[in-house]
Amino acid sequence: MKEFMDEGFLLETETARKLYDAAKNEPIYDYHCHLSPAQIAQNINMKDMTDAWLSGDHYKWRMMRAMGIEEKYITGNADNYDKFIAWSRTVENLIGNPLYHWTHLELQRYFGIHEPLTQKSAPAIWNRANELLQKPELSVKGIFEKFKIYAVGTTDDPVDSLEYHLAIANGTAPIGKIDTKAIPSFRPDRALNIAADGFADYIHELAKVSGTTIKLTDDVFTALEKRLDFFISMGCRSSDHAFEYAPYTVACSGQIEKTFRKAMAGKKITRQEADAYKTKMLILLANLYAQRGIVMQIHLSVIRNVNMKILLQVGENAGIDAVNDREISKKLAALLGHMELPKTILYSLNPKDYYPLATIMGGFQEAGIEGKMQLGSAWWFCDHRDGMEEQLRVLANLGMLPAFVGMLTDSRSFLSYPRHEYFRRILCNLIGKWVENGEYPSCHQQLEEIVRGISFGNARKYFG
Amino acid sequence: MKEFMDEGFLLETETARKLYDAAKNEPIYDYHCHLSPAQIAQNINMKDMTDAWLSGDHYKWRMMRAMGIEEKYITGNADNYDKFIAWSRTVENLIGNPLYHWTHLELQRYFGIHEPLTQKSAPAIWNRANELLQKPELSVKGIFEKFKIYAVGTTDDPVDSLEYHLAIANGTAPIGKIDTKAIPSFRPDRALNIAADGFADYIHELAKVSGTTIKLTDDVFTALEKRLDFFISMGCRSSDHAFEYAPYTVACSGQIEKTFRKAMAGKKITRQEADAYKTKMLILLANLYAQRGIVMQIHLSVIRNVNMKILLQVGENAGIDAVNDREISKKLAALLGHMELPKTILYSLNPKDYYPLATIMGGFQEAGIEGKMQLGSAWWFCDHRDGMEEQLRVLANLGMLPAFVGMLTDSRSFLSYPRHEYFRRILCNLIGKWVENGEYPSCHQQLEEIVRGISFGNARKYFG
Amino acid sequence: MKEFMDEGFLLETETARKLYDAAKNEPIYDYHCHLSPAQIAQNINMKDMTDAWLSGDHYKWRMMRAMGIEEKYITGNADNYDKFIAWSRTVENLIGNPLYHWTHLELQRYFGIHEPLTQKSAPAIWNRANELLQKPELSVKGIFEKFKIYAVGTTDDPVDSLEYHLAIANGTAPIGKIDTKAIPSFRPDRALNIAADGFADYIHELAKVSGTTIKLTDDVFTALEKRLDFFISMGCRSSDHAFEYAPYTVACSGQIEKTFRKAMAGKKITRQEADAYKTKMLILLANLYAQRGIVMQIHLSVIRNVNMKILLQVGENAGIDAVNDREISKKLAALLGHMELPKTILYSLNPKDYYPLATIMGGFQEAGIEGKMQLGSAWWFCDHRDGMEEQLRVLANLGMLPAFVGMLTDSRSFLSYPRHEYFRRILCNLIGKWVENGEYPSCHQQLEEIVRGISFGNARKYFG
Repeated sequence: MKEFMDEGFLLETETARKLYDAAKNEPIYDYHCHLSPAQIAQNINMKDMTDAWLSGDHYKWRMMRAMGIEEKYITGNADNYDKFIAWSRTVENLIGNPLYHWTHLELQRYFGIHEPLTQKSAPAIWNRANELLQKPELSVKGIFEKFKIYAVGTTDDPVDSLEYHLAIANGTAPIGKIDTKAIPSFRPDRALNIAADGFADYIHELAKVSGTTIKLTDDVFTALEKRLDFFISMGCRSSDHAFEYAPYTVACSGQIEKTFRKAMAGKKITRQEADAYKTKMLILLANLYAQRGIVMQIHLSVIRNVNMKILLQVGENAGIDAVNDREISKKLAALLGHMELPKTILYSLNPKDYYPLATIMGGFQEAGIEGKMQLGSAWWFCDHRDGMEEQLRVLANLGMLPAFVGMLTDSRSFLSYPRHEYFRRILCNLIGKWVENGEYPSCHQQLEEIVRGISFGNARKYFG
Repeated sequence: MKEFMDEGFLLETETARKLYDAAKNEPIYDYHCHLSPAQIAQNINMKDMTDAWLSGDHYKWRMMRAMGIEEKYITGNADNYDKFIAWSRTVENLIGNPLYHWTHLELQRYFGIHEPLTQKSAPAIWNRANELLQKPELSVKGIFEKFKIYAVGTTDDPVDSLEYHLAIANGTAPIGKIDTKAIPSFRPDRALNIAADGFADYIHELAKVSGTTIKLTDDVFTALEKRLDFFISMGCRSSDHAFEYAPYTVACSGQIEKTFRKAMAGKKITRQEADAYKTKMLILLANLYAQRGIVMQIHLSVIRNVNMKILLQVGENAGIDAVNDREISKKLAALLGHMELPKTILYSLNPKDYYPLATIMGGFQEAGIEGKMQLGSAWWFCDHRDGMEEQLRVLANLGMLPAFVGMLTDSRSFLSYPRHEYFRRILCNLIGKWVENGEYPSCHQQLEEIVRGISFGNARKYFG
Repeated sequence: MKEFMDEGFLLETETARKLYDAAKNEPIYDYHCHLSPAQIAQNINMKDMTDAWLSGDHYKWRMMRAMGIEEKYITGNADNYDKFIAWSRTVENLIGNPLYHWTHLELQRYFGIHEPLTQKSAPAIWNRANELLQKPELSVKGIFEKFKIYAVGTTDDPVDSLEYHLAIANGTAPIGKIDTKAIPSFRPDRALNIAADGFADYIHELAKVSGTTIKLTDDVFTALEKRLDFFISMGCRSSDHAFEYAPYTVACSGQIEKTFRKAMAGKKITRQEADAYKTKMLILLANLYAQRGIVMQIHLSVIRNVNMKILLQVGENAGIDAVNDREISKKLAALLGHMELPKTILYSLNPKDYYPLATIMGGFQEAGIEGKMQLGSAWWFCDHRDGMEEQLRVLANLGMLPAFVGMLTDSRSFLSYPRHEYFRRILCNLIGKWVENGEYPSCHQQLEEIVRGISFGNARKYFG
């Protein structure tokens, strides 16, 4: 029996352990996350473990609700200590859940705590960890250095001023000079979600920020183009789009303009109308990304906010989103088929989409760059050992694993970097099993290159 | 090499074996089955092995047809001995199929027969097992005692008199006083299937049995409410609904009443109309279940009766149902979102639904009870080693495994109790692998609590 | 650690190794492939390794594009040696991909080369393999003898003259007398694809070849019937149909005839109209197959030609097809339900379809033949170790594995026969794991019968 989460964690063969030795010291290119640029600039220390773990992590909130815990101790106004105890009680029941591993990797790597978190061990851990959280080693800068964070790709709205990115780049922010690049990502969802409340207000804001008069959809595009160019001047390497499903719908120009005018007048837009507008805008933007050398990320198959009661009480991103199972293949293929394609990463929240995604993207691979089209890493509800292994296996079976740009945290927390370690262990273990089973030659130099590339080098090359 | 199906069956690690030792003696709460209350009351002994195994088991019929056996030896009028021989010939070919394991677990546990069933061994087994079947140990009462059956949840129509349940509860039935609770479950499918033949007749019957004048859909609900209250007075703890897919469709009151009048007049109902009626009724019933503390079970993604020839020859439940692959997520989320939710168990016949189901239900977990929303155990076509492990892994990855209410037989046969053993072995093996691989602390007390809870305790608590 | 791809490749237990010893010498019934009858008749030798591996293999083209290689070295006019080098560079990166294993099995079995193919080893392998390719042992005849090819089922259009099949059968072709049967398969896709360009021309050709005046859809059927009877006279045992999805749509006779007249006049046909025509024709053909004892193969869930740029440059079958995720269950069940069913094999390109397919087909199993309805082997994008194991497990869990007709190459290349070896190793390994884990008795005679049957005997019996 292996010890609980020791240095050989998830590494079941000698080859896996050797490969992980090669992978573990690679820097981290965390190309998609939701960190706050302001918090980076300010080089914050998290206040306490509840602030660190529970202030924004809807993964944990879901589990606490499954445990039957009152909302007050989850997102409510209970005391931070009591929330931590409630969470520790929940953790004990997370056997087989990635949060169990993430929690303990974080305790080990950030705090040197190797004891399991339980209701019993919680008070001592609370004290010890809170104390350490205040040290410079666990400031943002300390964490970035400790985990060799080469770059973080934040997620930013086109209307964002990027003032914190600028201050960080210039070394004028409180955090001072750092080796980590804080790179903005261009996420124009609000400019595409024409049926959402507040769309017209957003377009007015976009017009103002970009200095563009917006009357037609082409003006929206012009405004976005200006903002993208500003983002690029600030180091932006990638964009990001989220859709419930691939929205491919053809409509004539006149119809789309009519839809846009309706939306600007605050009138209700049908799903069909919205999809036609999104189709037009996304194709225009994809072409723009291709011209500018910007990576396009597309996130598919989510259902947002299934529980209205919690939505009203807690707001968006409250742990009430779910996996969509809508058919995606034909419309996604059509959408990509109408683009001049940039480098593209396709993510889905539903593992049943991996076969369609991996094969559709395979039809658009192209000369000049390894892995131009990417199957996004196991995302959100799929981001666990089984899910990562499934994504890696599908990618290997249907595509070219060594070209994969690898893992990202997708996180709001500075404590999430061990997710890269978790991924690297799973990757090395999978490859180790193949090699030890005689399925690939045991040539360590080449194997190390593969795991190093997927851990870091491929992402650096891909995002440029 | 392990011996064939010995005491370590499916237990691949030392930890698994220890955990199974803790799980194996737990009582059984078989909260969803299709046993006949009359047969329980009468404390029947099964006539012979063909009666026991082949009289109602469409799982086996399918395999016999795949073997190319004539229908006469399956559901027809051939001699029982010849049917048994035909089945034994089929069994030999069921490598990798759960029926192979169920068959041999049943031979071992009920009859002490450890030899594989083959065409050659069949005659001796026929004689030996038939003899034992007549003993009091293999009467219903004997079986309930032997397998420590704490409760069986039968599946009952709202119009049912529950006379057998009453007699069993009172100890006035031939079976006498027993420790096992025979609990009725409320399954109002016929009151919801407005497009089915015989709907109007059923509503008339419901009106009569409940003493309600039914003119409007609200009257249907009132009648069901009366019947539910009667069921509850007889110990009912849960309801059950089966749908091909989540039928969420909104219509105004007037339209739904018009649909109802058409149906009562024997006219044809469209799918759209039927779905709107079902949506209304299901939401009303869910709210009622919530008020009464009754568990709601929803079974999704079946296609019934694909083969008309066999349907006409054999009837319903003839082994000609199949797995549906219709999109379910958006409508199911909407349906649940419109309910005051009772404790709810969501089952699907299609494993591709597990991610949507587990994440949708996760959005509705709520204070006050661990695991209020449940991902139903691997059901029917999924009820095999791979399928159970898949359901357990998805649940662990996306939710809280230790809150799971565990297995049920869903069976028409008194010989099916080893399915609980099969499940417990698979559960303990999965947890054992995690622990021995260093993924969870090797704390046996806690691990035993988890497997005991999933084996029995959680269900007892959940159904109250 | 096991050696790279040695004789124990993929065989993880002693039982697996013993079973593979029993399976490996079985002949091959390659009942579905895309070999050229002309090349067989002419007993060709492949010109060089690029001709052998890259002239028609779109699986490899996809991987070369994923590698970022210019199209010139893939399907273009670059030198064959340079293409081979480009491919060898790609191979190095195919860890976890079936092409890695196929490539090395082919090098080992055809050429006695046991060294991994890399950019470095490529020049020597190019010379050595090209030399061997010219020997009689690697002519078609030599290959058929070496691999004990009992039969190859080519894929042929109803209008085909089958002249090469005739010459091969008569021994009058350059290949002379051979033991291998070259069997035509009847694939009337072009007669069913009423919405495709060139439909009317095709129908005129069919009319001419069959000597039938075609005015109505019944005439199309009559023409196909004549051609099927001709095919049968030439040894045909099976038909084949490809659909993006199950096209079940009911329309009245008049509507279908109107659609047909529109198509013959070169007018555009809607999807609905096309589906109604296909439904009628497929049902008629299925009944015909049933009467003639011909196996019906149905291939589902493909999206063709997602990348227009490559389609225009390279043409059909260019490596730009993908996996469809359309709902299939209800319409497929309805389609089969309206047929007098012949022996039928259902393939899907999407593994998520296995549960619906396996359970729908299970509802149509029938007396008289073991495994009348078959779940087709893991196909195309699913044809890899994980995919084959998944298909075998689903089939075993939901049906009767020992009745399975097993593997086929689906290949255009004479170098693909080791795919049968690959499959047999995976099959024996899976069964070996079950047996060594105590899940099935360790009775070698019976186990050997099972693996021999799935390797060869079942197909011979099934196709008759």
